[in-house]
Amino acid sequence: MRSENLVIAVVGASGAVGAEILDCLEKRDFPVGGLKLLASARSAGKAMRFDGKDVIIEEVSESSFDGVDIAFFSAGATTSRKYVDVAVKAGAVVIDNSSAFRLEPGVPLIVPEVNGAELSRHKGVIANPNCVAAIMTMALAPLHRARPIRRVAAATYQSASGAGAAAMEELRDGTAAYLDERPFQASVLPHPYAFNLFSHNADVDMESGYNGEELKVIAEARRLLDIADLPIGITCVRVPVLRAHSMALTVEFDSPLSVDEARRILAAAPGVRIVDDREANYFPMPSDASGIDEVLVGRIRSDLGDPSGRSLALFVAGDQLLKGAALNAVQIAECLLDQRMASAAAA
Amino acid sequence: MRSENLVIAVVGASGAVGAEILDCLEKRDFPVGGLKLLASARSAGKAMRFDGKDVIIEEVSESSFDGVDIAFFSAGATTSRKYVDVAVKAGAVVIDNSSAFRLEPGVPLIVPEVNGAELSRHKGVIANPNCVAAIMTMALAPLHRARPIRRVAAATYQSASGAGAAAMEELRDGTAAYLDERPFQASVLPHPYAFNLFSHNADVDMESGYNGEELKVIAEARRLLDIADLPIGITCVRVPVLRAHSMALTVEFDSPLSVDEARRILAAAPGVRIVDDREANYFPMPSDASGIDEVLVGRIRSDLGDPSGRSLALFVAGDQLLKGAALNAVQIAECLLDQRMASAAAA
Repeated sequence: MRSENLVIAVVGASGAVGAEILDCLEKRDFPVGGLKLLASARSAGKAMRFDGKDVIIEEVSESSFDGVDIAFFSAGATTSRKYVDVAVKAGAVVIDNSSAFRLEPGVPLIVPEVNGAELSRHKGVIANPNCVAAIMTMALAPLHRARPIRRVAAATYQSASGAGAAAMEELRDGTAAYLDERPFQASVLPHPYAFNLFSHNADVDMESGYNGEELKVIAEARRLLDIADLPIGITCVRVPVLRAHSMALTVEFDSPLSVDEARRILAAAPGVRIVDDREANYFPMPSDASGIDEVLVGRIRSDLGDPSGRSLALFVAGDQLLKGAALNAVQIAECLLDQRMASAAAA
Repeated sequence: MRSENLVIAVVGASGAVGAEILDCLEKRDFPVGGLKLLASARSAGKAMRFDGKDVIIEEVSESSFDGVDIAFFSAGATTSRKYVDVAVKAGAVVIDNSSAFRLEPGVPLIVPEVNGAELSRHKGVIANPNCVAAIMTMALAPLHRARPIRRVAAATYQSASGAGAAAMEELRDGTAAYLDERPFQASVLPHPYAFNLFSHNADVDMESGYNGEELKVIAEARRLLDIADLPIGITCVRVPVLRAHSMALTVEFDSPLSVDEARRILAAAPGVRIVDDREANYFPMPSDASGIDEVLVGRIRSDLGDPSGRSLALFVAGDQLLKGAALNAVQIAECLLDQRMASAAAA
């Protein structure tokens, strides 16, 4: 990286995550010296606001990354496979929100609060995790540091935003049609979404019966927590919620961890907010998690399904577009900046 | 019971479950010789259709049950505690949909397909289980008969109907307001419901952190399956779905049960329909479960969270108002009728 104020590129700027990346950069006062908004030909020519100015989206091409310091990729695995190398060769550091490189040994997969120290071994590409894996490990990592985790069971309540802006629109439009008793044909997601839910639409592995989303979460959570063979059972479900993911987790530890201890650990964990009011029956909800940076954790209790007393149950909610995507990507960029400043100070 | 065509009373006729009981009686050609619709003073005087005729709702009172053969109670635990004894003394057999007597040792708690044989030991009152317990055990009982279950983990996706017709209306109205960007004040449920979800609103036990719904399901599933101390870990969540409950289940068996074997067992289980198409990514959904009698079971797979290979994962959806309430109650009445005909034949 070359300048104090960095030249930033956002690939997939017109998508749901792209817009949130711009918002995070602006809100967090990231030192943006130049901004290139890149997307497919379909979105090229449209303008987006940044820092009070209109920035025109350009079509991404082989020459898009000249002079770019940090490139955020958020346009799906196919685009990342095509252009990430180009960007790295042009001298940019890539923060990739797609699944393309998340399991490559040479590419660190990072949630700063979980495994930020891994970041320094990057060779030009840093992978931003799957949204469920990021939100889940925000709750699990602090506990794991205190008491090793040996098994996880998860059921998710995933929002429309995970399938992009068009899916959010389809949920709104399909619901309005349902209420008006008008026919509605879903085109983004494979099932009716109004007042309905369905197993995650990622392809199902015929052998195991797990879908692609579940297998991603398992593999990525293991990498993020650095527990190679952690047994994780998970069911990923899309619910008619717009932009925050929730999940019910059961966590088995090496030895019992008390509810009070877990609550103390999580209360001190950066990026985590405890919402656990038994008396008021107030716990993490997507409506509260939407639009905020923190991951909400509550319903912390000893799991009645494990008589050994070694398991805790939790309920977690986090903004899919923020900690599950854009915010985490921008936090990774902030870590890069810190490292750069640290090495400049040391020099 | 005195006549070939039975005199039926429905207490709580004007509620969501009451209406479904009438519908089930009609659709299933139950031999209704007389029908008394009973409710609070608020609903008295209103008419409901049954078998092509208007029936006027009467206010429930001490004398309501004279001449009644079978009384369905579906007006909450307080009404049941007040009037069930009155009905039994008047000679009626009570099928109670409230939680009032579900854990009383002398009162059989019945899902006909699960433990119908228990019905014969009734002393005038039969309890209809909690909706989640009924739907869950429809999937678990056939498996348990083949291979003993020793642990269950559940996360639920519960619909508005579980909180009654007013909650369904609140979900519709709140969602319409959200889409129109109008303010909306929830009054039935304690949290915003449009595109949101929340931990079940039943009071939370301050000691364990489990809520009343979860504790009901644990106690009732144990009774229905007749496994006194079965460890069950459960998280009950209300999702913005109108009338079918779904649940992600993980079931540990005494010894491994293969996916194929489980699918065969469930395919042969009465009242269960397998919806488990991995290739088409088609699994149980509330939209498919709503309005039908069968409980849908799918996503049958070996649980990756249990390396011992002794656990299966399932996803289940069932109509909360039908198998979770009204249908099961009417099926209990049909069993009573069968027993009566059997004893008449034997005499």
